[in-house]
Amino acid sequence: MALEHKGLPYKTVPVRFTDKDVIAFSGQERVPVIRDGDTVVSDSWAIAEYLERQYPSGESLFGGAIGHGLARFLNSWTDRALHLALIKLVIADILAHVDDADQEYFIESRSANFGKSPNEVQTRSEADLRTFSHAVSTIKAALNTDDFLGGDAPAYGDYILFGAFAWARAISEFSLLKANDPVHAWRERMLDLFDGMPRSTVGYDV
Amino acid sequence: MALEHKGLPYKTVPVRFTDKDVIAFSGQERVPVIRDGDTVVSDSWAIAEYLERQYPSGESLFGGAIGHGLARFLNSWTDRALHLALIKLVIADILAHVDDADQEYFIESRSANFGKSPNEVQTRSEADLRTFSHAVSTIKAALNTDDFLGGDAPAYGDYILFGAFAWARAISEFSLLKANDPVHAWRERMLDLFDGMPRSTVGYDV
Repeated sequence: MALEHKGLPYKTVPVRFTDKDVIAFSGQERVPVIRDGDTVVSDSWAIAEYLERQYPSGESLFGGAIGHGLARFLNSWTDRALHLALIKLVIADILAHVDDADQEYFIESRSANFGKSPNEVQTRSEADLRTFSHAVSTIKAALNTDDFLGGDAPAYGDYILFGAFAWARAISEFSLLKANDPVHAWRERMLDLFDGMPRSTVGYDV
Repeated sequence: MALEHKGLPYKTVPVRFTDKDVIAFSGQERVPVIRDGDTVVSDSWAIAEYLERQYPSGESLFGGAIGHGLARFLNSWTDRALHLALIKLVIADILAHVDDADQEYFIESRSANFGKSPNEVQTRSEADLRTFSHAVSTIKAALNTDDFLGGDAPAYGDYILFGAFAWARAISEFSLLKANDPVHAWRERMLDLFDGMPRSTVGYDV
């Protein structure tokens, strides 16, 4: 989304969880990773900062120092609250969609994180659903009547949040948002960006 | 803080919880309220938006549309998560500091909110302390190594967060932040702003 925002051409490479050799050149084991000429950057946030610095003539991702600091807050909250609330609702669905080669790795690594297996985590209990709804209500209040968190147009804050809904959509049919929720309408607008690129990726129509 | 940020002169009027008549001119019952010539605005967020719109030549509070939307997210989170986590830790301390005339009002209105009395809410249980620490860790990650959420200088996002710590400091000796926490250092910087105006208000040195 950040590359599209900046109008930069790119080529994507699908990577399995266990394809650590494919990204070994980045000196670490997690996606996303970008290679731009001789420069390699990993981690979404670091990539966004790199793109903003390296390509200042494209549309701004942060809108200056104030927007940058506030986007880092949103990123921090998304990592600590939104992703955690979300993964509890769809973690078994991820397992059902990973490559055979990744099954064991996914079960072992996630069971270590949660202290129980993906199927035991994904109970969609009232409490878990409430925690996720609470996170969504925070987003809803932040959008207010604007089309995007960035106002009339999306910016990196929108992409931070959309990342969570995008990966969920790729692996789960579970309906996370009610059709009449303004956050649902926002997600629809996000899916329509860049000539519908996000909507054209593999995923469920939820 | 927003008025100081904009470099606007102002006069403050102390108001008790039950002094509803003092702010009746605002057409509602809650502080903060400002009166600027013939214009009356209530609610911190609405006041910040008003000041940014009405006094564009002063230092920007939001830094543009992107920063505005992200500040609204922070405001939404602060209302829903930070203030709630905080008030559970100091609500009985508030009661101990309100004017005699406000005692009954405070107990009744807050007991209605929480389903129990302020003294029953403020147990500082492990769970309540953990919830507050989690909120603080989100702020810490957002600050990273910057002096302020706004980068080198504070902006409205900093004032949103500082508001929580400022009211707590006014009524409680409870130590909310460890001396070695970067959020503590940030709060110290906030207290030093505007020639130490925030530090000079009545409060505990915590």
